[in-house]
Amino acid sequence: MSSKPLELSWIAGSPFSWRVMLTLEAKSIAYTPRLLQASRREHKQPDFLALNPRGKVPVLRDGDCVVCESIAIMQYLEKRYPARPMFGQAANETAVIWRAISEFCSYLQPPLLRVAGPLLTGKSQEMASDVRAAQPEVYAEIQKLESSLALTDWLAGIDITAADATAYPFLKLLLRAAGKDDASQFELGLLPLEDRYPRLATWMEQVERLPGYERTYPPHWRR
Amino acid sequence: MSSKPLELSWIAGSPFSWRVMLTLEAKSIAYTPRLLQASRREHKQPDFLALNPRGKVPVLRDGDCVVCESIAIMQYLEKRYPARPMFGQAANETAVIWRAISEFCSYLQPPLLRVAGPLLTGKSQEMASDVRAAQPEVYAEIQKLESSLALTDWLAGIDITAADATAYPFLKLLLRAAGKDDASQFELGLLPLEDRYPRLATWMEQVERLPGYERTYPPHWRR
Repeated sequence: MSSKPLELSWIAGSPFSWRVMLTLEAKSIAYTPRLLQASRREHKQPDFLALNPRGKVPVLRDGDCVVCESIAIMQYLEKRYPARPMFGQAANETAVIWRAISEFCSYLQPPLLRVAGPLLTGKSQEMASDVRAAQPEVYAEIQKLESSLALTDWLAGIDITAADATAYPFLKLLLRAAGKDDASQFELGLLPLEDRYPRLATWMEQVERLPGYERTYPPHWRR
Repeated sequence: MSSKPLELSWIAGSPFSWRVMLTLEAKSIAYTPRLLQASRREHKQPDFLALNPRGKVPVLRDGDCVVCESIAIMQYLEKRYPARPMFGQAANETAVIWRAISEFCSYLQPPLLRVAGPLLTGKSQEMASDVRAAQPEVYAEIQKLESSLALTDWLAGIDITAADATAYPFLKLLLRAAGKDDASQFELGLLPLEDRYPRLATWMEQVERLPGYERTYPPHWRR
């Protein structure tokens, strides 16, 4: 294996990039971030397409090894840096973590993006009927998360795991969408989160206390 | 851990169940199949909902441990029975396997189900425009698989892995859909597979030579 530091190509605010960065920070792995400007379509230029022909972030480079797809990168890191496991050690821990990841990716992530995507890209007027159609699924799944957080402090146990890293950036994206002016017409009922979903709010604050969290935060969201 | 045999609740033809069964067979793990009748909604009855409140198969029982979600079960089995690894041993093997799984689940599985689902449930007339809308994505991804099989015999290397188990049942489902009378209006261009996508055909035959494959085959598809 190479001794050069890992290099992570990312786009600010990409939830797929963000989950990998949270994993790197949680495992205290040093890496060099390579921020691509989506507005300049840097992820569709030849040098990046040579790494990932799909033109998608995140991409991890570890010497000659190039890893695409967020979950694949997280699994790669788990094997390469087994300290501070994020996917559990015992089989039953792995099962709980992977169930949470699978349920998030299958049942919440798709409708969440149908709500947040149009609001964040200024297309919520033309997509209004699809936003409304996706809302009930989003609430049902968020309520399940809120209920599960009555039993454990983190999504899959007593400490941060890959389940938290996988889900957090998407929920942060949804809250950002809920704060847009155009969101008022949809009555999203998410804000203020500490009143609507207090356990989810506490969980998000926990993630945000992770050392290194600030490095993962989208720079343009601070402006 | 329990010494009782594993019990897998499944529905015949459920591609999510099937990928777990292929994993069990590839790892030569003994298990007791518990076939649920979807037509009688056995997966929505109280005894099954007590195992998985979402009423979804597959569900694995290993003594007191209950695991839901197909990928979670496969990861559980990998930890519990590490012999014959399906997710790789070295980090770079894991990266290749997981990239193939993620790309399949993100880019081919959703449009494939939009094509196959309506054909298999007799709704292809009313869903015709959505079937047609999904077709180009399906072809683009299947062509990528066909190309990748020029380099390796299996989807992620020189032997069967979780990537093959994950993808195979969905492609089998698509081919079954392509053989329905209603499919002729869509010019799917998939059959005969050995002429259209010869490497994919060879790969599917390879999967079908797996010892125990017959046990995973949907009984009602033989009629």
